[in-house]
Amino acid sequence: MRMVDIIARKRDGKELTTEEIKFFIEGYTKGTIPDYQASALAMAIYFQDMNDRERADLTMAMVNSGETIDLSAIEGIKVDKHSTGGVGDTTTLVLAPLVAALDVPVAKMSGRGLGHTGGTIDKLEAIEGFHVEITKDQFIELVNRDKVAVIGQSGNLTPADKKLYALRDVTGTVNSIPLIASSIMSKKIAAGADAIVLDVKTGAGAFMKTNEDAEALARAMVKIGNNVGRNTMAIISDMSQPLGFAIGNALEVKEAIDTLKGEGPEDLTELVLTLGSQMVVLAKKASTLEEAREMLVEVMKNGKALEKFKVFLKNQGGDASVVDSPEKLPQAKYIIEVPAKESGYVSNIVADEIGVAAMILGAGRATKEDEIDLAVGLMLRKKVGDKVEKGESLVTIYSNREDVASVMDKIYANISISSESVNPVLIHKIITE
Amino acid sequence: MRMVDIIARKRDGKELTTEEIKFFIEGYTKGTIPDYQASALAMAIYFQDMNDRERADLTMAMVNSGETIDLSAIEGIKVDKHSTGGVGDTTTLVLAPLVAALDVPVAKMSGRGLGHTGGTIDKLEAIEGFHVEITKDQFIELVNRDKVAVIGQSGNLTPADKKLYALRDVTGTVNSIPLIASSIMSKKIAAGADAIVLDVKTGAGAFMKTNEDAEALARAMVKIGNNVGRNTMAIISDMSQPLGFAIGNALEVKEAIDTLKGEGPEDLTELVLTLGSQMVVLAKKASTLEEAREMLVEVMKNGKALEKFKVFLKNQGGDASVVDSPEKLPQAKYIIEVPAKESGYVSNIVADEIGVAAMILGAGRATKEDEIDLAVGLMLRKKVGDKVEKGESLVTIYSNREDVASVMDKIYANISISSESVNPVLIHKIITE
Repeated sequence: MRMVDIIARKRDGKELTTEEIKFFIEGYTKGTIPDYQASALAMAIYFQDMNDRERADLTMAMVNSGETIDLSAIEGIKVDKHSTGGVGDTTTLVLAPLVAALDVPVAKMSGRGLGHTGGTIDKLEAIEGFHVEITKDQFIELVNRDKVAVIGQSGNLTPADKKLYALRDVTGTVNSIPLIASSIMSKKIAAGADAIVLDVKTGAGAFMKTNEDAEALARAMVKIGNNVGRNTMAIISDMSQPLGFAIGNALEVKEAIDTLKGEGPEDLTELVLTLGSQMVVLAKKASTLEEAREMLVEVMKNGKALEKFKVFLKNQGGDASVVDSPEKLPQAKYIIEVPAKESGYVSNIVADEIGVAAMILGAGRATKEDEIDLAVGLMLRKKVGDKVEKGESLVTIYSNREDVASVMDKIYANISISSESVNPVLIHKIITE
Repeated sequence: MRMVDIIARKRDGKELTTEEIKFFIEGYTKGTIPDYQASALAMAIYFQDMNDRERADLTMAMVNSGETIDLSAIEGIKVDKHSTGGVGDTTTLVLAPLVAALDVPVAKMSGRGLGHTGGTIDKLEAIEGFHVEITKDQFIELVNRDKVAVIGQSGNLTPADKKLYALRDVTGTVNSIPLIASSIMSKKIAAGADAIVLDVKTGAGAFMKTNEDAEALARAMVKIGNNVGRNTMAIISDMSQPLGFAIGNALEVKEAIDTLKGEGPEDLTELVLTLGSQMVVLAKKASTLEEAREMLVEVMKNGKALEKFKVFLKNQGGDASVVDSPEKLPQAKYIIEVPAKESGYVSNIVADEIGVAAMILGAGRATKEDEIDLAVGLMLRKKVGDKVEKGESLVTIYSNREDVASVMDKIYANISISSESVNPVLIHKIITE
């Protein structure tokens, strides 16, 4: 088998065999297939696409390129959730204890990463004492006993995907549905998921800018999951404006607590209930999405979800009293309002630019070496569709520096107010198969 | 300017600017742009093509990536001929003295290369004493005085093309019209051509297997030439069967001599007159192709073409007496006929396979290190369309080894005889603009 022939076959629109895909991924991982052949194949795939069988094969070849996590010692169906990423996305913090309260096992491997705010681990570290340095045995024991635990990323998972992703990034081959879908799915499967729920974002703050592209990606991933024996569901959710009100680590922890009590922002609550319903159904704890949703609302109302959050924090060394006394979370020195310059209806809040404003304050990392300031961030006071009077606050800035002029400028430049009211849509589509 | 953006723009079907193309070729030559980005761009070009302006820019960027030959000290319009290559192609050997006899300056840079038979230099070296180790000053002096000289390839011409070609070969991006056309044209222009005649072969023995592909390539090259100020013409000629009768170095020299006398194979003579007419017109020695052709036939008939060949050989140390005494050329030890196994009409002679048969005898090089045996080769006794009786010779083998069983097998396997007569076409198209 020669790599140049595999490239030529895909270039000519032919279907690659399972063996050809394995040959490519194994050779590329080992380094016997050079970058210049991998990038040529990636570009050929960009133009010629892959069918469902090829996508499933590519995913599993990447899973098998490195270590995989064995979660078989955990009872029940391990459902993992993946979001394609956005601004102010506090979903994981809420979902994990929420579905665990219904005995859905949540064995979460999480990272820090780059972005407008920190990763899930960064956010949790806003809670005094909380840590993810637990052994694999402890991790499994915790999930078996209390249904939820988070461990830091370890091991050499999907090295083929890491190498290929870095290459795609510099060769104009990122935006290819089969390549994106297999990349995401291989990571989830290697991390031990039995079933997967996907939150594919769409809009300015998302990787996929249109609903059509987001849906194509979601359907591709659901198909891959189901084809490789991992039941998978997805939703398409809006990321044209930030999700919830909070953008910043401690601020998002506080918002997560509110949401677990049933007092969170409307959009975040709705998203969590929608994704959570899919998780509960995939874990076979309910037979319909409606039934699952009722169960989730119930544990929000009766305090079991919040209680689960406390147990989770305590189990990993965290000070669970922050749940009842959120003032114990890191606090910013300066709290500055951003008053509306005119009256009307908020018509647009450009998610990614508002995310950058939070990052400028120190809430996120632009490079791996950056230190995060857990206390700082933004709280939206208005969301798209809200009525606002001139002088009312649009956003509250939480800063540890007094001078926030550039942040204010960025906020003003990216929140539009119009005379007509608008009606934002949160969940564009629910894909169950 | 970032290479990844250039790749993405071409991927999206956009036109690259002159500056972007220069940035790519300069960076790739210097090594600041890595192979994996160049191969991704090549694949994007494969799918999205390049317009005429981009093709001209790519050609000139490659010309300017290295040294260029300055032939301005030679009087007149220097017309170069390029063939896309085939089997038994003795054209250059005939054309050079033929058009030089009409005062068209032929300043030929030639190489050895790989192939079924040797390059032009190898063939000429079948003549005792002939050599191409002359200085550039001598070369120019000879062309100015006698209108024809051949010099060995030297200098670092079109390094970008060399590097890119090697990369395309292993990344499935060879078969792209803009990339093939700019590669060929850049080499001719760097070698100093003022005007260019192209012989694009089509059929089994050619790189382009169909007339449509050959025509597309020919038109692309003619357009590039004219867009960068080099008047260019082309023909599409048949290479489904070998050209002429001779395949082998000394055998082709003998055939060239016959052709210069007007006694050569019909197809080779016709091809030489067609290409020669274009060269004479481009050199402005005649105003129409018809007029040029008459002039060429005249110098064949009156012996001036043959005389020019003698002068050319003498000028470069060769024993010109071979022209009148071709038995002085290297002779093979064994002359073996290949009798037809049945009667009928020759319907097919698979050019490339017959070429391989000659290479097995030692007429060509499979690798750079191979030594060529100048004496050996094949003489076709029948061409496509010829009537043949059972037992009549199809091919004469000239060998220095007694055992030619494998060569005979290959010949029999690749010459078809049918009961119906066929009519081969030699020149499929003449493209003058």
